[in-house]
Amino acid sequence: MLDTLIQQMTLKEKVGQLNQRLYGWQTYEKTANGIQLTDYFKEEVKRWDSLGVIYGVFRSDPWSEKNLETGLNQVEAKQVSEMIQAYVKEHTRLKIPVLLTEECPHGHQGLDSITTPTNYAVGASWNPALYQDLQGIVAEELREKGAHVGLISTLDLCRDPRWGRTEECFSEDPYLASAFTKAAVIGLQGEKSEKILAPQKVLATLKHFAAQGAAMGGHNAGPVPIGERELRELHLPMMQAGIDVGAVMCMAAYNDIDGVPCHINEKLLTDILRTEMGFKGAVMADGCALDRVAERTGKTRAATLALQSGVDISLWDNVYPSLEEAVLSGQLDEKVLDQAVYRVLALKEKMGLFMAEESTPVHATRAQKKAALNIQMAEESMVLLKNDGILPLTAKTSQRVALVGPHIDNIYHQLGDYTPFKKLDDCITLAQGIEMACKESAMSYASAYGSFISAPLENGMAEACALAEQSDVVIVTLGGSSARDFSTEFDANGAALAGSNEMTSGENIDLADLAIPKAQMALLKALHQTGKSIVAVVISGRPHLLSACLPYVDALLLAAYPGQHGGQALANLLFGKSSPSGKLAISLPDENGQLPVYYNYRAAAFKEDYLDLSGQPTFSFGAGLSYTKFALEAVQLQKTAQGWIVSGQLLNTGDCDGAEVVQIYMKNYSTLVLPRVKKLCGFEKRFVKQGEKVSFAIPIDAQALQTFDLNMQPTAITTFDLSVEIQQQHVQLSNQA
Amino acid sequence: MLDTLIQQMTLKEKVGQLNQRLYGWQTYEKTANGIQLTDYFKEEVKRWDSLGVIYGVFRSDPWSEKNLETGLNQVEAKQVSEMIQAYVKEHTRLKIPVLLTEECPHGHQGLDSITTPTNYAVGASWNPALYQDLQGIVAEELREKGAHVGLISTLDLCRDPRWGRTEECFSEDPYLASAFTKAAVIGLQGEKSEKILAPQKVLATLKHFAAQGAAMGGHNAGPVPIGERELRELHLPMMQAGIDVGAVMCMAAYNDIDGVPCHINEKLLTDILRTEMGFKGAVMADGCALDRVAERTGKTRAATLALQSGVDISLWDNVYPSLEEAVLSGQLDEKVLDQAVYRVLALKEKMGLFMAEESTPVHATRAQKKAALNIQMAEESMVLLKNDGILPLTAKTSQRVALVGPHIDNIYHQLGDYTPFKKLDDCITLAQGIEMACKESAMSYASAYGSFISAPLENGMAEACALAEQSDVVIVTLGGSSARDFSTEFDANGAALAGSNEMTSGENIDLADLAIPKAQMALLKALHQTGKSIVAVVISGRPHLLSACLPYVDALLLAAYPGQHGGQALANLLFGKSSPSGKLAISLPDENGQLPVYYNYRAAAFKEDYLDLSGQPTFSFGAGLSYTKFALEAVQLQKTAQGWIVSGQLLNTGDCDGAEVVQIYMKNYSTLVLPRVKKLCGFEKRFVKQGEKVSFAIPIDAQALQTFDLNMQPTAITTFDLSVEIQQQHVQLSNQA
Repeated sequence: MLDTLIQQMTLKEKVGQLNQRLYGWQTYEKTANGIQLTDYFKEEVKRWDSLGVIYGVFRSDPWSEKNLETGLNQVEAKQVSEMIQAYVKEHTRLKIPVLLTEECPHGHQGLDSITTPTNYAVGASWNPALYQDLQGIVAEELREKGAHVGLISTLDLCRDPRWGRTEECFSEDPYLASAFTKAAVIGLQGEKSEKILAPQKVLATLKHFAAQGAAMGGHNAGPVPIGERELRELHLPMMQAGIDVGAVMCMAAYNDIDGVPCHINEKLLTDILRTEMGFKGAVMADGCALDRVAERTGKTRAATLALQSGVDISLWDNVYPSLEEAVLSGQLDEKVLDQAVYRVLALKEKMGLFMAEESTPVHATRAQKKAALNIQMAEESMVLLKNDGILPLTAKTSQRVALVGPHIDNIYHQLGDYTPFKKLDDCITLAQGIEMACKESAMSYASAYGSFISAPLENGMAEACALAEQSDVVIVTLGGSSARDFSTEFDANGAALAGSNEMTSGENIDLADLAIPKAQMALLKALHQTGKSIVAVVISGRPHLLSACLPYVDALLLAAYPGQHGGQALANLLFGKSSPSGKLAISLPDENGQLPVYYNYRAAAFKEDYLDLSGQPTFSFGAGLSYTKFALEAVQLQKTAQGWIVSGQLLNTGDCDGAEVVQIYMKNYSTLVLPRVKKLCGFEKRFVKQGEKVSFAIPIDAQALQTFDLNMQPTAITTFDLSVEIQQQHVQLSNQA
Repeated sequence: MLDTLIQQMTLKEKVGQLNQRLYGWQTYEKTANGIQLTDYFKEEVKRWDSLGVIYGVFRSDPWSEKNLETGLNQVEAKQVSEMIQAYVKEHTRLKIPVLLTEECPHGHQGLDSITTPTNYAVGASWNPALYQDLQGIVAEELREKGAHVGLISTLDLCRDPRWGRTEECFSEDPYLASAFTKAAVIGLQGEKSEKILAPQKVLATLKHFAAQGAAMGGHNAGPVPIGERELRELHLPMMQAGIDVGAVMCMAAYNDIDGVPCHINEKLLTDILRTEMGFKGAVMADGCALDRVAERTGKTRAATLALQSGVDISLWDNVYPSLEEAVLSGQLDEKVLDQAVYRVLALKEKMGLFMAEESTPVHATRAQKKAALNIQMAEESMVLLKNDGILPLTAKTSQRVALVGPHIDNIYHQLGDYTPFKKLDDCITLAQGIEMACKESAMSYASAYGSFISAPLENGMAEACALAEQSDVVIVTLGGSSARDFSTEFDANGAALAGSNEMTSGENIDLADLAIPKAQMALLKALHQTGKSIVAVVISGRPHLLSACLPYVDALLLAAYPGQHGGQALANLLFGKSSPSGKLAISLPDENGQLPVYYNYRAAAFKEDYLDLSGQPTFSFGAGLSYTKFALEAVQLQKTAQGWIVSGQLLNTGDCDGAEVVQIYMKNYSTLVLPRVKKLCGFEKRFVKQGEKVSFAIPIDAQALQTFDLNMQPTAITTFDLSVEIQQQHVQLSNQA
């Protein structure tokens, strides 16, 4: 059917399917007469006698200048999507419906949608099943608005936390990130078997392919001089995991790999992605990325190169319109164009856009259920790194609570980059969460900012210290913020050009110094001087150097960006309604001069320590304390028909209920390639009631048992040692005699 | 002839040729009855009924425990080498002479030999011709002792100055390092055309192949996850340059490249090195490197793998003795062994060892000539980075000179790692040089340490400040030291295990923090407080963060490790006998959090600056001031039959004689691979008298015009822009219409 359709299409109509040139939020305007489609939109439809794909109609943020007034709420969004489809149907020859794509890195970047914890937090939950449920909500919300595609970062590994987009990374580890990638795809799309997506599902566009997190020095879109083995071992597994569960869209990455820009990398986008990994879908360009190619080659050649390499859909660039010229001038075989058009039409078919209109309603999850899931994810993603016994807080020892810090009641400080404008009534700030908990526990509550994120606050320190003096315990927030405001300037692709005073993280906000900002450190030290108990809560989009903070705190909880209900989650942990169960998914470096530092480096016989500093991070991947204690029993390795299984029992031997993550690490000896010192090859998070135990059986799956030999041929790992680890215990196993 | 010899050899004799198991300095002992060969030596000869290659008979340093008493002076060295050859001749069936190999990273690491500036200094001279002359002296000195091979680091590029072996790197740039590699080979070996080396020449073993300078985080022998293009563009050109001028020996590097250890990397050591690059010689293992392979594979397999991959000669390991077993058990084809034996015998043939003994005497360069060359190299390698006008010092403004700092009269602080024990009479410390110059200029001189390298010196600061108060100008040394002492512990390969208090650089002495040590900074600030003029001289094996020093100094001169005559060279510059002409060959970073930082990064369209710090170094590759001024005139680009030539005139428009380096940088547009923002493609250092001008004609040679296309095929650069640069002027050229 699609082939027949393509045969009917003119060259212009075909090129129109591959263009995603519009900034979606400029397609409508709110007028006195209601919402109207703009000439900007209508001209584009006319230009191609069609409209293939359109990005970000519902986007809301300072860059798009779509706020609670000017943007589209849930109802208006649905209305505009219907207006767009109707207009295209009425004004084009072939009446091919439009594919609407939207950002959803941590919930939809549009009004009235849930904002979840960012990936840097989510990864630390080690709970992909929970994340899958959460992405189910994101899909529902998108589909209710009339969108078909959610763009989501799942492919970027953080190998250097100076990178401003670290907050979009699940982990430094490919196995863990792959588990979350699968969860994202299944959560958004449903099970792979569905030929046409269910009416509450959307397609996932996985970002970014590939290796963006390996950029030199953490520079955004910086050079990536890595080799093919490093690429295959670390940066491709997430995409493979996505494909395995049905991913049919991904976005090419801005960066080069060893000198070749991803957008014109045929080996990457065709040989590896499609032929080898079995990807059957469409690749989208990153915003304006093709313009960067065209600067060196001219537009027609850039369009030809990108399409031939495997980029099917453009984004904002002025390059893909030149596909017409490329075909007409004989530079591009129209068959290659047809292939890309087929892929785009196939996506529309998968979304049911060619079916007779159905009335199947989308049954939205109720707000209360959404909030509960979102709070649970935030709770499970917080990592307790130090606790001298002050936590959980009780009325007995901490009758008077002071909350201090720059993050305490600006909701945007706890939400990350790519965040829409929020209705404050839908959110729970840290201050709201803590105040509520204090009330419930009959504890007194007071608060003060103490400091801005980066700059000192006039009288802030004095005020905070005065407050501390009147209190039994001080909860102080430390860290950064990705909050944009109207003073932020933006590049053509929406990346921040000049950060506002408060912005220390996010796209293009790379840092050379990961220390907690001086103003906050001064505040912390001053608070410590009061002699009161100090509980530090780190709110941030990336790892910071926390060893400098440790001497001044009695407890330290890493909360990352916990999402719009983060205040509730934080209160639940601090006041003991739940026990912390997050484990670091990205190691926390000790000093800037130690970067890069991650747990899974290659086991070269090298000098791991510097003369003046350990080579190890302050807190490594997998670390995280609990209010209770756990032990392992009867851990063993068994061979099965499919591979291997690690089984055993996890006991809660402490004083309260809680969850622990059983982590399994491998060191392999199967090839002459240097193995990594350890690599995660299996894990399971289990909730165990106090005094009880649960059995686990964790498979070491085919992905974990695959490696590449000296000649880069895939080969199975047959000889390995395992370390089965929980926070308080490591059990060594081996499959060798 | 060699084939015939090999046919006569037993398996044991063959394996004996490939072993370099002995620590050479343990082959003799000084007794009451004179020097005697040890049982350790004799047993090895008996074991193989031969002795192929022996390392470091003349080595002197704390590790070998061979000092001025226990080690071999020039005359004794000759004597021992003759004893060794005679013993092998008398006690082996085939009477094959031994090949004696010695370290000479900056002069021979034995007694009575000249110690030149280290490579980090030499690279900054931008004067390969001078270096070639200096290496001629090194060759003479080695040959006079009876050695045949000099091991010298020329292949390591510094891409991260945290690496302790940065001092062994010429540069961060492959073109500049290649020029010095050629100079080293020609200086040591003579012209390529010689079939048998002249009697004052030795063979060069170039270290290390390949990419050791790209190790993650500057960790010594750390993982190198780079791709093939990064390898080819940056790390192979030095070896190719060496081969082009006749290099027939190199040493494999400890590190892996993208997971594959160099010592078992057949693609690297055979396909690329021999087949592609045309290397006809022998590859030596690094010390104990094969033991590291054997830990994973067992000895016999490690021996087989390494030999098959292309390692011909071992070093200290217990692996190559297993070559016998490898052949006997059928794992290794004896033909592969024969090939390696052939290569070793060919080296001996090239050294004339199979000829009837000649009486050709080696005419040594006179000590005075040696010193003059060594002083000139030290002068030319010093880089003036700041000068508010205080330099050169004159009796008029600086009647009373104070010299302060931890480096001023410990000769080992100015010599680097891999340094032999020195007779102090042969050396000129900084203090000696400055004091002499003061005397000549009728200026007063006084000195004080002020500080240790890393630790404060009791009363040191007070003493130094009191001295400063009595002076007009304070010359203060800042930096580090690679001086080993008997308290240093060593690994089996001689790398330092635990640094002494004073050691901040050298093999295995990697640093996380490149700041000038706190004690020295405190001293500098205290001296600045006196209000006196401050001239800072940086003595060090690697770049430090100098921006923190700049506010406190009126002049700043980077002297690196200037060699045994460094004091004279420093005085010549400070007091104006010569004008500084060194230019940075490795960029000086601004902060640790900025690493890696180098000038020749790939021109990805990325965010070069961090939010909180520039992406640029404090002083970049190529920078360096002079006492005079230069200008360029009539610069033009011409096409020739061979390629391109940049010609023009260099004018000395200032107040004194001096030398300047004309640097030519390229940005190429010939392939779709991202070019580097700039890359050095030609240079010439020219001395110009005050008020005069000289013409230059610098070819852009084939090496500079070669690149690799998307598919890694070599291709010529046809379209490029050039920037012709001197310190005060940049001229832009292009070969495009």
